[in-house]
Amino acid sequence: MRVILVYDISTETKEGVKRLNRVRKIARRYLDHVQKSVFEGELTEGEIEKLKFELQCIIDNDEDFVIIYKMPPSIMIERDILTNTNDPTSNFI
Amino acid sequence: MRVILVYDISTETKEGVKRLNRVRKIARRYLDHVQKSVFEGELTEGEIEKLKFELQCIIDNDEDFVIIYKMPPSIMIERDILTNTNDPTSNFI
Repeated sequence: MRVILVYDISTETKEGVKRLNRVRKIARRYLDHVQKSVFEGELTEGEIEKLKFELQCIIDNDEDFVIIYKMPPSIMIERDILTNTNDPTSNFI
Repeated sequence: MRVILVYDISTETKEGVKRLNRVRKIARRYLDHVQKSVFEGELTEGEIEKLKFELQCIIDNDEDFVIIYKMPPSIMIERDILTNTNDPTSNFI
């Protein structure tokens, strides 16, 4: 499946900063880092479940926000990045 | 088109906090607020261009990050929210 992962980890505490770093490390093992808190890629259902399990072991359910969008692999997703951030992957994914 | 908007506005300065509030206000006029910096909805190409124009008038191209995903209207998007945040729309959008 085509996957888009977005997270918003509360970094108001030292623990939150640690969680953010650990979440980013896990996300990088599974997906391409688009920018800041957005990751994309192609994963099997099994890989998605493993990713979710690893993230859930770390995130704070009340403080943090993590969302995974899952879409059929064949679809055409167009991506507009409105800022000067580098776009490590092509405009069509 | 089906649209997912994600932004990451730098709030290290007072101006950044103002930008964040204005970006959120604009996004709410066009899309459903899923959580924190994630918005979703169904927009025409014209509406997407208007949204982009309004956002670009506000955001700081070097400090902020704004991404818009555009997908065909007919596709099935499954959404997993891993945290206790309320899910204002159904799991399938």
